[in-house]
Amino acid sequence: MPRPAPGRRADYAWFTRLDLRFNDNDVYGHLNNAVHYQLFDTAVAEWQAGAGFATGAGTPWLDLVVESGCRYIGEAAYPDKVDAGLRLGRLGNSSWSYEIGLFRNSDDSAFAEGFFAMVLTDFESHRPCPLPDEIRALFERLRPGS
Amino acid sequence: MPRPAPGRRADYAWFTRLDLRFNDNDVYGHLNNAVHYQLFDTAVAEWQAGAGFATGAGTPWLDLVVESGCRYIGEAAYPDKVDAGLRLGRLGNSSWSYEIGLFRNSDDSAFAEGFFAMVLTDFESHRPCPLPDEIRALFERLRPGS
Amino acid sequence: MPRPAPGRRADYAWFTRLDLRFNDNDVYGHLNNAVHYQLFDTAVAEWQAGAGFATGAGTPWLDLVVESGCRYIGEAAYPDKVDAGLRLGRLGNSSWSYEIGLFRNSDDSAFAEGFFAMVLTDFESHRPCPLPDEIRALFERLRPGS
Amino acid sequence: MPRPAPGRRADYAWFTRLDLRFNDNDVYGHLNNAVHYQLFDTAVAEWQAGAGFATGAGTPWLDLVVESGCRYIGEAAYPDKVDAGLRLGRLGNSSWSYEIGLFRNSDDSAFAEGFFAMVLTDFESHRPCPLPDEIRALFERLRPGS
Repeated sequence: MPRPAPGRRADYAWFTRLDLRFNDNDVYGHLNNAVHYQLFDTAVAEWQAGAGFATGAGTPWLDLVVESGCRYIGEAAYPDKVDAGLRLGRLGNSSWSYEIGLFRNSDDSAFAEGFFAMVLTDFESHRPCPLPDEIRALFERLRPGS
Repeated sequence: MPRPAPGRRADYAWFTRLDLRFNDNDVYGHLNNAVHYQLFDTAVAEWQAGAGFATGAGTPWLDLVVESGCRYIGEAAYPDKVDAGLRLGRLGNSSWSYEIGLFRNSDDSAFAEGFFAMVLTDFESHRPCPLPDEIRALFERLRPGS
Repeated sequence: MPRPAPGRRADYAWFTRLDLRFNDNDVYGHLNNAVHYQLFDTAVAEWQAGAGFATGAGTPWLDLVVESGCRYIGEAAYPDKVDAGLRLGRLGNSSWSYEIGLFRNSDDSAFAEGFFAMVLTDFESHRPCPLPDEIRALFERLRPGS
Repeated sequence: MPRPAPGRRADYAWFTRLDLRFNDNDVYGHLNNAVHYQLFDTAVAEWQAGAGFATGAGTPWLDLVVESGCRYIGEAAYPDKVDAGLRLGRLGNSSWSYEIGLFRNSDDSAFAEGFFAMVLTDFESHRPCPLPDEIRALFERLRPGS
């Protein structure tokens, strides 16, 4: 079964640089497979903060991660530097997904690619609520080439 | 789009109890979404060790995680206790997948379900190698109801 | 400079068993030195919860860790099991310390010993407040041999 | 009992900037107290790598952390940026200590200060061995103002 080709930097719309830590490496000397999700989480949080997409206490919304996934393409290890690229994946009525590519040092080819499937809920009721237009507008910036 | 019903304990073949830690909870007061993968990793390592499926240094093989995923169904938080259930998913020539369900305290319905897609490689060359019969026999124990 | 002898189980008053995780081991194949503090934190949280010593939101108090330390005596690694022993260290007007010993499998001699120096503060003002008698009574249970 | 004044940037000799992660914050909304040690560990590893002080496999030496400690002075939380300052503490025949100050964003006053007490051992025998002159020379660069 052929695997899709690894993503390239041009396939992503927004980037942030993330440090690794000595203890991110496991006994095999490369990143433990759970670390990738810490990096995804941090990249998404940074984009949301920078874009002004606030959720949680003090806002009407709570955004929930309903699914996540990662395809491990190559190895990376502390002390490598990592650039996380972000783009919009699926976009629905109250749901969307972030797609994240992790790039090692100056590599143009991702060593890992993953996603977070998200749903916007009402802060009080925790029930899905439609994505407001101002959030949809922010998401447009996450299309590669935008 | 309807989501599949959460798995039940009877859907899994082997179980191990895992502790949570105070720092597993994030600012939302429940498990950070990367912690689930640490639990998956530990459950798989415990099963492999108990089954005598050794890989890495001193063996002919290295097993690699090529993909992982998690569906977040409900919440769990320290100090909950977690039972991880394990079962065999796909089985190919040199690849297979572990499927893991996480159960909170005495719940019969999983709060999260995920998988690790694995490939067996030659320790030296890192090239895929066929799963030997003795490993296939171990995997049979991971079929629910076996 | 001679180092103190490692503590023994009889030197501690209360115990809890803690699991390790695959990713707790670093490239040297044993617990990364920060993991010990996650274990200390969890042991303290379990004792406080079991003893009914609640702090934080919904209580008048916030307890702060003002200092921590760990002496690494021997090695431990996943998949070892760890018993954490707890005892009271210093006891002041609004401050106290927890002392924690970590024991590997059935070893009677600690592989690590550490402490958390704590201060009780008013939840609102964050200023130190005297330890109430009911908390002092709980602490008496943390004296070895009590 | 008066506590020592927090260290300032001028009290340290070498600096590295470290990122925080979303999951570093615990339920109190600031760094979990074990995260500080991950940061210390990473700062020390970066200095040693940059200075050419290699230990472990392929070298005659293994350096062990025999004790660690941290004084928590103020709060920090993701998404703060952290500068870790490093300096030499004690220096003995085969032992030494690194002292680390953590600075939040552009603060001149440390929010946490800690140490790692180290010993150099023979890679094979794990017995302490005298610090060679070339390592002592490297340590001189870790004196503030040097």
